[in-house]
Amino acid sequence: MPINELFKALSDENRRKILDLLRNGDLTAGDIAKHFEMSKPGVSQHLSILKNADLVYSLKKGQYVYYSLNSTVFQDVLQWVVQFSSKGEKS
Amino acid sequence: MPINELFKALSDENRRKILDLLRNGDLTAGDIAKHFEMSKPGVSQHLSILKNADLVYSLKKGQYVYYSLNSTVFQDVLQWVVQFSSKGEKS
Repeated sequence: MPINELFKALSDENRRKILDLLRNGDLTAGDIAKHFEMSKPGVSQHLSILKNADLVYSLKKGQYVYYSLNSTVFQDVLQWVVQFSSKGEKS
Repeated sequence: MPINELFKALSDENRRKILDLLRNGDLTAGDIAKHFEMSKPGVSQHLSILKNADLVYSLKKGQYVYYSLNSTVFQDVLQWVVQFSSKGEKS
């Protein structure tokens, strides 16, 4: 897990909004762009940062590229965060 | 919760190491500096970034300033991350 890149990727509101959209299911860059006041290349760049951080992956279906949440990586992040959320108990 | 600053603060290995040290209990900047090949001002700057992100807080005890994990904020992060960790189930 590229952990520095991962947290950097999460430090942007638009990228967190993209992740939120993907919770409902896989989407193309075009589907995602409809939810933003942003150019398609802008959306693509955010998607590329999320991909490099392993937070999303892409899958070609026919002529379309779909983006999916990489829930396994979020589980790893969860494991990491959980150790700081209960004070005084060392896991 | 200043969420952009929070994730930016987590995107640095030294700062994550400081958080790890604080899991064992409150420490002064001097205690923390002993674990790093870094100047005290360097450690202080990391502590200041962690403080601005609400991940740690400081408490004056006598003539010393102790740093503590803000476990409440980690619980908020946990709540946020958990919604992405189980695919296809919208919380």
